[in-house]
Amino acid sequence: MKIDHLGIAVQSIEASLKFYEEALGLTCSAREVVENQGVRVAMMALGESRLELLEPTSTDTPVGRFLATRGEGLHHICIEVDHILEKLQAMKRMGCRLIDEVPRMGAENRTIAFVHPSASHGVLIELVERKD
Amino acid sequence: MKIDHLGIAVQSIEASLKFYEEALGLTCSAREVVENQGVRVAMMALGESRLELLEPTSTDTPVGRFLATRGEGLHHICIEVDHILEKLQAMKRMGCRLIDEVPRMGAENRTIAFVHPSASHGVLIELVERKD
Repeated sequence: MKIDHLGIAVQSIEASLKFYEEALGLTCSAREVVENQGVRVAMMALGESRLELLEPTSTDTPVGRFLATRGEGLHHICIEVDHILEKLQAMKRMGCRLIDEVPRMGAENRTIAFVHPSASHGVLIELVERKD
Repeated sequence: MKIDHLGIAVQSIEASLKFYEEALGLTCSAREVVENQGVRVAMMALGESRLELLEPTSTDTPVGRFLATRGEGLHHICIEVDHILEKLQAMKRMGCRLIDEVPRMGAENRTIAFVHPSASHGVLIELVERKD
């Protein structure tokens, strides 16, 4: 297991990238629009992990609503696991509340699922299956 | 550079560890009380990074105030850099607002400094100097 990426909600990818690239020295390695989540995404490598800037495509999206209530900042952590379906089933048996009880397709065509923050003491956790 | 750790504000390390250990399968590798920051800390390895649970020693501490206004959740990201003093000086020259303009001692007797969230679009960023 490892941190696959850390999601950061931002008003503007352009404005935030300026800080991460110029002040921290990171490099944007990929951009994508994930239509089914209503976000524009910019990825920056950081060791074995990435930072993922998330800019909503409209206010009526999960990240848009997050920005409206909490403002810009850390949004979620994505943890890479070997077998996502088994992990979800085990968590469900333990009584953990899941946003996605069945894995679905996320950014980069990878299999993902979100755990509900009420299960993880306020932290929105995304699981992603390891690529071979 | 890499993610050294991800700080998570919690009401109770005991209650949160139960989720991270039993549901995610992580292991607590170290505990510490950092008196000058008013927190109890529990560390869990996750790949080359760690998750750091932060439980305030009182309500009148930075993490105590964070919990009172934002609730439990992601608190800060700590990025490991080679030369923290040079990095801080470069950021200051660029006009980035810093919480610590001079590095100070943090958890695990390592040299750290915090960047102000207003510089980094709402993300509280801690820098830590790489250990040789």
